[in-house]
Amino acid sequence: MILTVTLNTALDVTHHVPKLIPHASHRVGAVTERPGGKGLNVARVLAALGHEVTATGFAGGRTGAFVRELLAGSPRVTDALVPCAGTTRRTLAVVDGASGDTTQFNEPGPQIGSAEWAAFLDRYEELLAGATAVALCGSLPPGVPVGAYAVLVRAARAAGVPALLDTSGEALRRGVAARPEMIKPNAAELAELTGSREPLQATRDARRRGAHAVVTSLGPDGLLAATAQGTWQAAPPRALTGNPTGAGDSVVAGLLSALAEGLDWPARLTRAVALSAATVHAPTAGDFDPRTYEEVRGSVKLTAC
Amino acid sequence: MILTVTLNTALDVTHHVPKLIPHASHRVGAVTERPGGKGLNVARVLAALGHEVTATGFAGGRTGAFVRELLAGSPRVTDALVPCAGTTRRTLAVVDGASGDTTQFNEPGPQIGSAEWAAFLDRYEELLAGATAVALCGSLPPGVPVGAYAVLVRAARAAGVPALLDTSGEALRRGVAARPEMIKPNAAELAELTGSREPLQATRDARRRGAHAVVTSLGPDGLLAATAQGTWQAAPPRALTGNPTGAGDSVVAGLLSALAEGLDWPARLTRAVALSAATVHAPTAGDFDPRTYEEVRGSVKLTAC
Repeated sequence: MILTVTLNTALDVTHHVPKLIPHASHRVGAVTERPGGKGLNVARVLAALGHEVTATGFAGGRTGAFVRELLAGSPRVTDALVPCAGTTRRTLAVVDGASGDTTQFNEPGPQIGSAEWAAFLDRYEELLAGATAVALCGSLPPGVPVGAYAVLVRAARAAGVPALLDTSGEALRRGVAARPEMIKPNAAELAELTGSREPLQATRDARRRGAHAVVTSLGPDGLLAATAQGTWQAAPPRALTGNPTGAGDSVVAGLLSALAEGLDWPARLTRAVALSAATVHAPTAGDFDPRTYEEVRGSVKLTAC
Repeated sequence: MILTVTLNTALDVTHHVPKLIPHASHRVGAVTERPGGKGLNVARVLAALGHEVTATGFAGGRTGAFVRELLAGSPRVTDALVPCAGTTRRTLAVVDGASGDTTQFNEPGPQIGSAEWAAFLDRYEELLAGATAVALCGSLPPGVPVGAYAVLVRAARAAGVPALLDTSGEALRRGVAARPEMIKPNAAELAELTGSREPLQATRDARRRGAHAVVTSLGPDGLLAATAQGTWQAAPPRALTGNPTGAGDSVVAGLLSALAEGLDWPARLTRAVALSAATVHAPTAGDFDPRTYEEVRGSVKLTAC
């Protein structure tokens, strides 16, 4: 089983409008709702790849109950979310039919009390016992200590479970220092962490800060990975147009599933690049297109740096 | 008891953001949620004026359950909503902290089946028996016949209950022909109904189409009323700055409460103008500021036309 942690789960709501006009009133055409927060997106992709997944984090209030109801209908995903008194946030994506662009509104998330955080830590340690790998993903809800990911990374190492950390800002800085197996920053997150905007230098610098491997997302140019086995750039055969929402979560799912299957770094990167491209190319944001995945998987360009 | 009908009830969600930037990601500062749809807004104002109110219409799904839970905490409002299989819509108002302007996203509302519509009509007739007046407000959800308000107006007349109709487009056109006691169009709705953009002429024309009285909202210039007792313009003593959201619903509540109390047209218009101004001036959209209400009530300018 692969464990995913989503401390700030969400109900992702998508509104489709013909054209977004600030300060006007819009009739929403189509509404979709699904479980969100990076870790739950990763769980969905892992399950689609055939992995058994256990999803933990917090869920509370009416929104949390709805997220859990939706998860209950997801094959291969076991709900191990911990109840909280506050209400799980919504994120709203307004998709502009004219341009295809998305405008995003993210609610702040529930206030987590210290007893709730302690209850989560107990549950997390229990779940680690059955996990082959763990993904630690996304922002921290209010009340969770900023050093939370460092605690979770150390607990995973103590349990012998490799941890992939995908977060940003101070939570990332503290988490990296606890020496996770992998981090997966994008260029902006990496620049904030290292102070460098030169991708190769910054990726290597991030590794020196504690992560065993750093996989930097370069957007349409693929991934740059600094690992103990070598440094590579992995790129799709051609730029794919579409919606990049969820492409980063697909990279996490690709890296973690390949790690859990015992694959080496070239195979992990190939899978992650193909899944990411297939997510950009999918008609629904955050899903991946299986045909594109199979097609790109055979033609990822891997270059040693 | 005053009856309010909201066929397309809503959960009104408000997101406060520092500044709305199309195609960007926003952290939402404050989130508020409350029962919405014009008739439920009217019910809230009527209850604040001290009237016993019964609220009917449709409610369904998780959103409908939440609307009902919020209504249960509202003093003097009795929940007589009729269940439907579909899910009550949300409306999202994004308030831009920089300009104060609002961008609105309205979900379409549940599909209402013919058996649900028949069940509503039964409940409506029962409720009319105890009502002194009825407000018929807002848009029709999918599946409700476009002539719905004409049916509801005729049933009210048969029960001897005066009906105020506040809707737009074809639903208004058909409803007016059934001869309601009052309609309350704004300038745009009136122009669509009559083809005339000259307010006095259009207001009189709308009366000839069947409404016993037509009260046209002129925005900051107040109200223009054509009635069997005379034609008046009622204006606030000065233009009040603020958020006009809900001002029209306050006009409906003012007119209907004054009618239920047996007040004459000048008193009805004075109350409606003062409530509307107090709503524009309130810190929370759709609430009214009691101090402004008392102040403006004493100084509304009433002019016979």
